[in-house]
Amino acid sequence: MHIGFLGLGNMGAPMARNLLKAGHQLTVFDLSVAAVASLVEAGATAANSPAALARADVELIITMLPAAAHVKAVYLGDDGLLANAHPGVLLIDSSTIDPQSAREVAAAARQHGNPMLDAPVSGGTGGAAAGTLTFMVGGESGDFDRAQPILAAMGKNIVLCGGAGNGQAAKVANNMLLGISMIGVAEAMSLGVALGVDPKVLAGIINTSSGRCWSSDTYNPFPGVMDNVPAARGYSGGFGSDLMLKDLGLASEAAKQIRQPVILGALAQQLYQTFSTQGHGNLDFSAIINLYRKDDQA
Amino acid sequence: MHIGFLGLGNMGAPMARNLLKAGHQLTVFDLSVAAVASLVEAGATAANSPAALARADVELIITMLPAAAHVKAVYLGDDGLLANAHPGVLLIDSSTIDPQSAREVAAAARQHGNPMLDAPVSGGTGGAAAGTLTFMVGGESGDFDRAQPILAAMGKNIVLCGGAGNGQAAKVANNMLLGISMIGVAEAMSLGVALGVDPKVLAGIINTSSGRCWSSDTYNPFPGVMDNVPAARGYSGGFGSDLMLKDLGLASEAAKQIRQPVILGALAQQLYQTFSTQGHGNLDFSAIINLYRKDDQA
Amino acid sequence: MHIGFLGLGNMGAPMARNLLKAGHQLTVFDLSVAAVASLVEAGATAANSPAALARADVELIITMLPAAAHVKAVYLGDDGLLANAHPGVLLIDSSTIDPQSAREVAAAARQHGNPMLDAPVSGGTGGAAAGTLTFMVGGESGDFDRAQPILAAMGKNIVLCGGAGNGQAAKVANNMLLGISMIGVAEAMSLGVALGVDPKVLAGIINTSSGRCWSSDTYNPFPGVMDNVPAARGYSGGFGSDLMLKDLGLASEAAKQIRQPVILGALAQQLYQTFSTQGHGNLDFSAIINLYRKDDQA
Amino acid sequence: MHIGFLGLGNMGAPMARNLLKAGHQLTVFDLSVAAVASLVEAGATAANSPAALARADVELIITMLPAAAHVKAVYLGDDGLLANAHPGVLLIDSSTIDPQSAREVAAAARQHGNPMLDAPVSGGTGGAAAGTLTFMVGGESGDFDRAQPILAAMGKNIVLCGGAGNGQAAKVANNMLLGISMIGVAEAMSLGVALGVDPKVLAGIINTSSGRCWSSDTYNPFPGVMDNVPAARGYSGGFGSDLMLKDLGLASEAAKQIRQPVILGALAQQLYQTFSTQGHGNLDFSAIINLYRKDDQA
Repeated sequence: MHIGFLGLGNMGAPMARNLLKAGHQLTVFDLSVAAVASLVEAGATAANSPAALARADVELIITMLPAAAHVKAVYLGDDGLLANAHPGVLLIDSSTIDPQSAREVAAAARQHGNPMLDAPVSGGTGGAAAGTLTFMVGGESGDFDRAQPILAAMGKNIVLCGGAGNGQAAKVANNMLLGISMIGVAEAMSLGVALGVDPKVLAGIINTSSGRCWSSDTYNPFPGVMDNVPAARGYSGGFGSDLMLKDLGLASEAAKQIRQPVILGALAQQLYQTFSTQGHGNLDFSAIINLYRKDDQA
Repeated sequence: MHIGFLGLGNMGAPMARNLLKAGHQLTVFDLSVAAVASLVEAGATAANSPAALARADVELIITMLPAAAHVKAVYLGDDGLLANAHPGVLLIDSSTIDPQSAREVAAAARQHGNPMLDAPVSGGTGGAAAGTLTFMVGGESGDFDRAQPILAAMGKNIVLCGGAGNGQAAKVANNMLLGISMIGVAEAMSLGVALGVDPKVLAGIINTSSGRCWSSDTYNPFPGVMDNVPAARGYSGGFGSDLMLKDLGLASEAAKQIRQPVILGALAQQLYQTFSTQGHGNLDFSAIINLYRKDDQA
Repeated sequence: MHIGFLGLGNMGAPMARNLLKAGHQLTVFDLSVAAVASLVEAGATAANSPAALARADVELIITMLPAAAHVKAVYLGDDGLLANAHPGVLLIDSSTIDPQSAREVAAAARQHGNPMLDAPVSGGTGGAAAGTLTFMVGGESGDFDRAQPILAAMGKNIVLCGGAGNGQAAKVANNMLLGISMIGVAEAMSLGVALGVDPKVLAGIINTSSGRCWSSDTYNPFPGVMDNVPAARGYSGGFGSDLMLKDLGLASEAAKQIRQPVILGALAQQLYQTFSTQGHGNLDFSAIINLYRKDDQA
Repeated sequence: MHIGFLGLGNMGAPMARNLLKAGHQLTVFDLSVAAVASLVEAGATAANSPAALARADVELIITMLPAAAHVKAVYLGDDGLLANAHPGVLLIDSSTIDPQSAREVAAAARQHGNPMLDAPVSGGTGGAAAGTLTFMVGGESGDFDRAQPILAAMGKNIVLCGGAGNGQAAKVANNMLLGISMIGVAEAMSLGVALGVDPKVLAGIINTSSGRCWSSDTYNPFPGVMDNVPAARGYSGGFGSDLMLKDLGLASEAAKQIRQPVILGALAQQLYQTFSTQGHGNLDFSAIINLYRKDDQA
């Protein structure tokens, strides 16, 4: 299939590569000349603008952008995708943005005769490279069926979450819970160890008890408990604290719009903001445990 | 073995019954005449006081009491266990109390020539009846080895967490994380559903993603997501909100003593206190989700 | 002076009346026909649209609108004020919105040749009627000097807070602190009284000690401590909880944009949201004390 | 009057000196030989133990101790004050402890025939030296009348707050509010300044608006706003963060005992604990504002 791909950053570039590997024809666009050149070397064709990409004979367009403002600009702008795409071309936005913005853009797309899916991912840059991302998809089930084989070239878990915006809704809900859980594990491990329990013993107990969670059994933030996690390598790599902060901001913003309390979620956002203000936003999000420890441990 | 058992409440009574079923000889005490009579009917012998129980020829004494004040009174009082137990008798306290109090009582026991273990449980009244409790044990490994076959008659997961008080430390750490996770799931499910995602679909996504946790995949608080959980029966049964409140109070108290921050833990305690003050402390702890919903939904 | 006034709600209408009383000529607009009719009866002239108002020979335009979306629509829309106002006409927006939006609109106004001030108020509907509002003004000092005599007809405390948007910045900072203080007083009064201190005695101590604040000495939320406050009349009247919720939302949104932690501010927002979700958003904001008391006291 | 004074630390020593200056005869005790020697030089008589102090012919005993454990030991111990004081001697404890402990000790005193008042102070070491402390007193009004002229030699504001323990209750309520307000001011000032408002202008607006409070108008934490406050001298001197942490701990403990939510109070405690864990507990409590600023500003 001839696919347009717009947004070749840390996530978008490896996703696009996996589409090439799967045999698809790709036309790509990014503001970074280097990013485009790298994909062209791998077999893609370059477009000069979003409008040019939309007017190429692509059957489907995927976007992967930093924030809602970029998504709105790329889709709704005068030189944007909607103003230039052929009717019927399926649009898939894999950016992580707030559900309401996703719904606004999807409604505008429908008015232009273009079906649209929101399909944010989880799994990080590792999952993007390995083609093992999870896609949380919002939109019509017929459009989902069309998209599934394409998405399957980039991920292994493709879930329809309901209508437009529901992919984003599911992702912000999951990631807000992730942020809360990680801080909860950071506090519980710090407390138990400070009370005298060996970190590995404590993690073993939690992981077979009611405190069990992904942040403890798969991504434990306490140094020395697990290998092959950011805590084992000084919190480098992984999912950055500032990215978690962004997702918690999306969650509390979405909650505010629908007047839904998210008390721990809002506090988690503030703790990640505090951690970022103290200069650690580039560390993996499990490094939040350092907020709970003495300076010389951090 | 001849075992003394003190404290025949909702947890203690079924635990004592399981010891009888396993063939042990039991001498029991409780302030409730009815509770004692019921165990006597099942084959136990009654003692008139903690002192009388300690002076009976028991080889091991197990206590299951509501709070640290009761534990201190029963062990340290003039008519208490330490003043009357034969030297060498192994003492096991399965009450949930703060680690520091557990360490004080264990040190006093050692001075009287009695080895002591703290062995709080998780698993609730269901686990107590079925003999499937988890025991988190603090103390010497030799004493742990002696206790293990006895505890195995009441539970299926018996874990040594280190020295005296570490059983309590592991339990408060785990249960603090549990309280945080449950509120986190309550917020995430409430948010995602209010944003339009079907509750079962949302739980399915979370349970296969990074938000996965026991509170979501085994004990989901959102009505209609799972059968056989308190949320499926109006939040009756289960682990009461006021019991969670007690455990969160133990956690923040233990944290205060060692000057360890537990920010989300303290907030979780306050939210359970608020829920209790609003009149719902008797509901299962997953009912905290009602704090996030309109009055007419609660 | 001939003044245009746009937005005749609970705040705008009495403000406009005070301008009439001060002898100014008024041209007014509102979507509510009744609101316009009432002002016309008092001596104002009606305009049919924002554009018509802007094209009348007004020397100065004041707007008083519910939220940033309305402000942007009224100023920036094709039929809006900027597209139709004569160059040099001074624009004053007294709406409470986020500082960034205020700065965007002010920059657009400047491009159209119109100086603009943001001038949000405090003092409520009572202060609007009595002409005793506080105006927190952002903009150029020359424009401030021009505006001051006009604003003085509606308020008694007119403060220049610095450049464009700074009036909004000062207001969100003050009102965030107000929300935190009110909850703090609610907790402190509830705690002290529950511990046995008489409410009036406790308030007297706080008001002469380091806990002293406006929420305690001028607007105490505990029933029976003061007369002539909402707590003395079932929390009716005053400054609604949902308005405080809106201001706390503006504060945390502004903080997010500049990456500034506001931990208690965000929690205060969530507590007001919880109170609103429980059905009490229409009560005065001091009613938040009911969140801390038993159902039958609420 | 012949007065016994026990506890000659940073607060107790200057208080005792003021009693000497007022012409009273003093018998003093402290574990620190140097502290005792300094008072003896000023005219006091030394006692060798609390028991000896109690058996000297004192008419009234004042204690000023660090925590409830010390108060209980000094009053209730075998060699303590109650076992040795003459009946009728009035006992005044000016330590800051939890209300429940104060009530326990007062009840024990009454059984020994000694009236007792709890009389914690505010005003810090400066107020202790200047004799301008505030005393918050719990106990019987007749005993309060007896004590007032003595307390007046050490303070200028002597308030009866009701029965035994109410002095402590009023103090924990006030100081919890103080901790919340200080963090609130820290957040509001940080936010407003980061949004572009001049710190002095912002403080001026807050101090004449609804955010007005002691922490803003008398003890502003933002550097450069006020002279003669800790913020003007690198947060040295003043009321230490760890002392505020202690008082917030007393407040949340008292609240837990009576099952009263204190949501912001508990979070304030955790933030001061975090600040202390990060190594800043010795700074004045207004230094909490550094938690909200970049590392290189702190």
